[in-house]
Amino acid sequence: MPLVRNNIVNMAAYVPGEQPNDISVIKLNTNENPYPPSPRVLEALRGITADQLRRYPSPDARAFREAAARVHGVSPDMILCTNGGDELLALVFRACVGDGEKVAFLDPSYSLYPVLAAMQDARKIILPYHITATQWTFPDDIFHLDAKLLLIVNPNAPSGTLADLNTLSRVIKVFPGVVLLDEAYVNFAPHSALPLVREHENLILLRSMSKGYGLAGMRFGYGIAQPVLLEQLHKVRDSYPCDAVAIAAATAAITDQAYAAATWEKVKSQRTVVTAALRAMGFTLPESHSNFVLAQVPGNRVAAEVYQQLKAGKILVRYFNLPGLTDKLRITIGTAEQNAALLAALQRAI
Amino acid sequence: MPLVRNNIVNMAAYVPGEQPNDISVIKLNTNENPYPPSPRVLEALRGITADQLRRYPSPDARAFREAAARVHGVSPDMILCTNGGDELLALVFRACVGDGEKVAFLDPSYSLYPVLAAMQDARKIILPYHITATQWTFPDDIFHLDAKLLLIVNPNAPSGTLADLNTLSRVIKVFPGVVLLDEAYVNFAPHSALPLVREHENLILLRSMSKGYGLAGMRFGYGIAQPVLLEQLHKVRDSYPCDAVAIAAATAAITDQAYAAATWEKVKSQRTVVTAALRAMGFTLPESHSNFVLAQVPGNRVAAEVYQQLKAGKILVRYFNLPGLTDKLRITIGTAEQNAALLAALQRAI
Repeated sequence: MPLVRNNIVNMAAYVPGEQPNDISVIKLNTNENPYPPSPRVLEALRGITADQLRRYPSPDARAFREAAARVHGVSPDMILCTNGGDELLALVFRACVGDGEKVAFLDPSYSLYPVLAAMQDARKIILPYHITATQWTFPDDIFHLDAKLLLIVNPNAPSGTLADLNTLSRVIKVFPGVVLLDEAYVNFAPHSALPLVREHENLILLRSMSKGYGLAGMRFGYGIAQPVLLEQLHKVRDSYPCDAVAIAAATAAITDQAYAAATWEKVKSQRTVVTAALRAMGFTLPESHSNFVLAQVPGNRVAAEVYQQLKAGKILVRYFNLPGLTDKLRITIGTAEQNAALLAALQRAI
Repeated sequence: MPLVRNNIVNMAAYVPGEQPNDISVIKLNTNENPYPPSPRVLEALRGITADQLRRYPSPDARAFREAAARVHGVSPDMILCTNGGDELLALVFRACVGDGEKVAFLDPSYSLYPVLAAMQDARKIILPYHITATQWTFPDDIFHLDAKLLLIVNPNAPSGTLADLNTLSRVIKVFPGVVLLDEAYVNFAPHSALPLVREHENLILLRSMSKGYGLAGMRFGYGIAQPVLLEQLHKVRDSYPCDAVAIAAATAAITDQAYAAATWEKVKSQRTVVTAALRAMGFTLPESHSNFVLAQVPGNRVAAEVYQQLKAGKILVRYFNLPGLTDKLRITIGTAEQNAALLAALQRAI
């Protein structure tokens, strides 16, 4: 008899992007913000005392919830903090989906979703995007689902495309279970679905401090939803999901909106530059509203080979050996210098 | 239709001990180490760079695994790091116990176990301790279980009592599923079950940096087991469960064994003092091998009232309104000064 459940034995683990130790590598593979977090974050770290380390932290990360509530114009009881956005996903799966129950998500999308479904021994409803050269749109099936949980990344990863609020509102209204709208990349987009939270009791937004606030190393995410849903989710979280240092760092980061917004503007401006340059080289890519682009390699060049060639030159991008993605590269928007190096290397490679 | 599963709607959340903001409170309620972590931890914190915050951390906390492997004399692939020991518990439940499957644990024990069982919609097998004035021992049922997972805290919380290795080895040998031995408090005990890990493929030890290393504010735990079991558990963990700062802090703490061991000796010496003083006052308590004692209130005094009286005097201990515990107080061993204040207040209260 195996020691763990059969669905665990039979599943494959999620494979995160490479994290090289070599700091000379230009790392455009895991969508980190190319700019460091607000200087207030390092100040907050320097101010941590031995007693804060010794004592258990605030179980519900109160300081952060109050700061985030002010930023978003909601009440603190509409915020739930987790150890990275991924923990919020795990927690929503656990709360909503039992063995053999159904979970729906779009494809291609975040490749962690099928892994979480396998963990929970859930049945997957995979909704293929309608994909054209310039846009990715929802299939009609999304309006006729019977499932416990629906996951939508918006802006989507790995495409960077954005669904409008009217469409989202229609989807959420007819879906019989919980809709998790993963807004990990929303800081680089023109709009958020935040206004929809008040209208829909079955909606939860996922936010992350990893990308927008330059805190991927810190693991801090949060959900925004009506208190009636969060009260249930609080039951399945760990007693102290966020540590005292992470709470202090994330609170400092979200409080400094001016600093973070300046990094978003720089990324968006560079996204325009990179998109135009890639198109000029013959790459095909939809308009991205995120901090990365998904570019189809031109002509008869093999994307996996271009990825390897860039890697040999110490530039890491993301290549997914998954249906619909094998002819594409997902490239994080870096600093102007990093992007220039990337574009020069791509020019040589194709 | 409820938005979350019925087992979640019907369950009650775990209630952690109080975390008062008032730092003048003598806090003997959540088993923190009364001594701060090694000075090397604050040094490690001061050395964190903006780039470490910006980039994703090591997915498997490699630096810590190597340091812990050296301390324990095992290989790094026998160590799995988690966001606090509680995350390891959640992860083992998820991997081992499906809807309606059975999980066994002793009672009274860690009050999070029934909450995790309810989350997983598991069936509970509750094994009552045989309790005398001086010892808590396993019931015979423990040798005849049919379940997927067995959880044993050793030294036990809230009693502080310790099972010997022969008994544990016999239990693990006959149990058909995974045995999780929660050694969160083992740094204060005369022996660990570490030698049993090599003999038993179905055993996982839980360790925590919260108590022994004064890092409750940091959330860092780990499991020790054979690689064949950990390979499966790796599949159900988050992609980056431990953040870069926590990895640096925990690595610094576990590397400074001399410092940590000195705090353990001070706690054990104070435990002797507190135990003798409580017995002299008429409290009944078994020998503790942990950093707390479980003391039955003498005469006809009501434990809940004594708890309230201490709290009014700004001394927090833990009172559990649970079967078998309503006549007892669980008291964390503090510094000599804190313990003297506690004993004086108890003398007044009874």
